[in-house]
Amino acid sequence: MAKFRINILGCGSATPSARHQPSCQVVDFRDKLFMIDCGEGAQSQFRRMGLKFSRLGHIFISHLHGDHMFGLPGLLSTMALHDVGGRITIHIFREGAELLKTWMDYFLRESAFEIVYDIIEPGERRTVYEDDGLTVETFPLYHRTACTGFIFREKPKPRHLKGEMVKFHSIPVAQLKAIRDGADYVKADGTVIPNAALTSDPDPSVSYAYCSDTLHSLRVAADVAGVDTVYHEATYDSSLEKQARERGHSTAAQAADIAARAGASRLVIGHFSKRYTSGEEPLLEEARAIFPATTLAREGLTIDLI
Amino acid sequence: MAKFRINILGCGSATPSARHQPSCQVVDFRDKLFMIDCGEGAQSQFRRMGLKFSRLGHIFISHLHGDHMFGLPGLLSTMALHDVGGRITIHIFREGAELLKTWMDYFLRESAFEIVYDIIEPGERRTVYEDDGLTVETFPLYHRTACTGFIFREKPKPRHLKGEMVKFHSIPVAQLKAIRDGADYVKADGTVIPNAALTSDPDPSVSYAYCSDTLHSLRVAADVAGVDTVYHEATYDSSLEKQARERGHSTAAQAADIAARAGASRLVIGHFSKRYTSGEEPLLEEARAIFPATTLAREGLTIDLI
Repeated sequence: MAKFRINILGCGSATPSARHQPSCQVVDFRDKLFMIDCGEGAQSQFRRMGLKFSRLGHIFISHLHGDHMFGLPGLLSTMALHDVGGRITIHIFREGAELLKTWMDYFLRESAFEIVYDIIEPGERRTVYEDDGLTVETFPLYHRTACTGFIFREKPKPRHLKGEMVKFHSIPVAQLKAIRDGADYVKADGTVIPNAALTSDPDPSVSYAYCSDTLHSLRVAADVAGVDTVYHEATYDSSLEKQARERGHSTAAQAADIAARAGASRLVIGHFSKRYTSGEEPLLEEARAIFPATTLAREGLTIDLI
Repeated sequence: MAKFRINILGCGSATPSARHQPSCQVVDFRDKLFMIDCGEGAQSQFRRMGLKFSRLGHIFISHLHGDHMFGLPGLLSTMALHDVGGRITIHIFREGAELLKTWMDYFLRESAFEIVYDIIEPGERRTVYEDDGLTVETFPLYHRTACTGFIFREKPKPRHLKGEMVKFHSIPVAQLKAIRDGADYVKADGTVIPNAALTSDPDPSVSYAYCSDTLHSLRVAADVAGVDTVYHEATYDSSLEKQARERGHSTAAQAADIAARAGASRLVIGHFSKRYTSGEEPLLEEARAIFPATTLAREGLTIDLI
């Protein structure tokens, strides 16, 4: 069974609180792990959620605020201790790579663990990761400092073979991959059997967008249009819209507006201000009034996209 | 009531585990807080134990391994957020100050929070902190990298006045401080009343030594001789003495030997290897066989020295 799962490791803002850890998520795509942001304590949450360091190959950092990256030195040191000779790629803005390199060159100076830096330029739209089944793209967010979102897109899947038709036309096994990929079948006598007669539509490809931290922006809605599940920060409720704007953040209503405009099927909200000491239900209610399929992020939550 | 309390925030080694946080302690001396080492997650533990950032003025870092300092960026950022215009002094080896400065100059570039660095030289014996009631001194430890211990010493306290004698000699209030500090009283007619007739011995001054990470060394025992409560790392049990030596660590028996040689009244052991997944009682038993007044450190433990 293909897996495309979001793990929420932290969904608070600014500083760890009694309720929340700072930002960190792990996308599990067919057992390869991709971390997005890495707030302090990420390695402990990672372990607590039963995730495997050996499967983590890429870390994506949205921006250079401490609550999104102070977990990196500890996480990388632990990985270096457990995976001697291993390597990881960190996708990050240039200044973040330089800061991190200064520390890791010192703390891992006796280790063979390799850190590869992939520099993201501010405002850049680029496919920063690709394998057989998945792409990860950047797109700009609008915060107090340069900030990037990430879209994880499952690649188009093969079409389903109609077994009885394959049998009826005695199609050789060697041809089946091409047919699943959309080719027609040409018989020995030159007769063409169109692909539509041999296959049915593939399972839909699923996608996930990570939007944190950002002002409410229609450009974000346009960039994540057509994505199935959108994570969007919702630091405040609407009564604090002015404060949200001043600090480069969004309200729950604004997050819901983005999901609605993007035509998403699901919205996950997080990056909660610590002022909501008795729970973020007010944020949830506010978002659901605009976009009913909204879920509150919380530490330990997993969401299966497939 | 004077307070001299040790708060254990973390007592694991190397990486956070299900059982332990990395090294961090807070000495509470008459409501001033002094942090020793600052592993990842220290700020969360600090808050969890009900300690106040506004009372924390000094941080002492024993050595430049990640598990003793990766909590600093997060802790300092949180303090900067809460204490705009405040300051803190970090006592640390030169290279640690440089690494930290690189990060904090970036992450706190918009903050008025001030970080003062007090550079400790490897091998140095120096009083790095002093106020009316307390001194903090460094002394060398013997680890894989330069490492320093810290001794917190309460200054000598005033002698107790014998109330009935003060009254009998009609001593003016203005004289009492000098007498508590040890002066004789000279009457108007020139008669000298010796201090011993007017006062009794003061409460004993209490001291605390922090020894982590270090090889078993008689030089450490000599440096902490006469200290009341000794914290000494006990990463391993005696069956792993060779491994302890190779890695610059001590066994529980060796920690107990140091406390015994130093004439301490109490030993606290910590910096436990994560191999003791079902508890550190074997380490406790081993230490108690040599030095009965041994306590296992654990997260959340507080020890009142007075």
